[in-house]
Amino acid sequence: MIHFITGNKDKFEEIKAILPEIERMKIDLPEIQEIDAHEIIRQKLESAQKHAKGEFMVEDTSLYLECLNGLPGPLIKWFLKTIGVGGLAGLAEKLENTKAEAKTVIGYMSGSGEIRFFEGIVKGQIISPRGEKRFEWDRIFRPDGHDKTFAEMGMEEKNKISMRRIAVNRLKKFLKA
Amino acid sequence: MIHFITGNKDKFEEIKAILPEIERMKIDLPEIQEIDAHEIIRQKLESAQKHAKGEFMVEDTSLYLECLNGLPGPLIKWFLKTIGVGGLAGLAEKLENTKAEAKTVIGYMSGSGEIRFFEGIVKGQIISPRGEKRFEWDRIFRPDGHDKTFAEMGMEEKNKISMRRIAVNRLKKFLKA
Repeated sequence: MIHFITGNKDKFEEIKAILPEIERMKIDLPEIQEIDAHEIIRQKLESAQKHAKGEFMVEDTSLYLECLNGLPGPLIKWFLKTIGVGGLAGLAEKLENTKAEAKTVIGYMSGSGEIRFFEGIVKGQIISPRGEKRFEWDRIFRPDGHDKTFAEMGMEEKNKISMRRIAVNRLKKFLKA
Repeated sequence: MIHFITGNKDKFEEIKAILPEIERMKIDLPEIQEIDAHEIIRQKLESAQKHAKGEFMVEDTSLYLECLNGLPGPLIKWFLKTIGVGGLAGLAEKLENTKAEAKTVIGYMSGSGEIRFFEGIVKGQIISPRGEKRFEWDRIFRPDGHDKTFAEMGMEEKNKISMRRIAVNRLKKFLKA
């Protein structure tokens, strides 16, 4: 059994479907000001270790724009709060480079405290917002080889190609080995 | 005597020259992921209170671009790390709005734990980097009514008009009253 530390129920269920051995753990760990997902995850895992024993898992899924040299990444929340998805799409357009990566990083901490990272990346383009508002940056990310934004795809369609699935499958493979 | 919590010696000395009653306190408080300077300061003051007794002061000076609806603000560090000052200036130019504010927020916590904020704002324009590299975003900020960027001014010239001085003077006035 692995403690998956997340405040997001949907994320938990999406991953549980692929990795049944996880159990949700809700502890409110402060998110440090950091742009490197690995570092954010590492610190959360190390804090979690002080709360309980066992194996832990923390996940970060963020959007990285080439025209901003990787921003916003884990700072996406603050970009949404200030310029919103429309502003972000406008930036990419004005900077004439709409390439982006949607990336999931999973950090797994074994019972002995060793940390391993597993990544999943989907490459795509930033376009003007399309799809329901609740989907946030999924509305401006269109994965390469597809006509729809993530927000326009059904959950099932998105999960089939998602960066989260790739990362979880890598962790799964590691756990089996 | 007020404990001024800062890791920056230059900042301390700049303020000490105006406000002699401060004493430097070095405690390494984690900077939470937050874009609101007031909130960052509030949390630092509340943490400091757990380490010592007395009066405390925390300061944040950041750059707020109108074209980015206030970004980067306290997230400036991550913009410098990714796109740099040149990238930030390029953004403002491409977005055709170079208006910006350099803003200092000082949080003061009295012995009874009450927090007051004092601000200083200097309006200006974002231009291509000019001046020595060590001055970071001072190189792209030209205060309105001046020909030089902050980085091109001497320390004395800058301090005369600086947002930090305005904020410190407001705190000073409050303390005297």
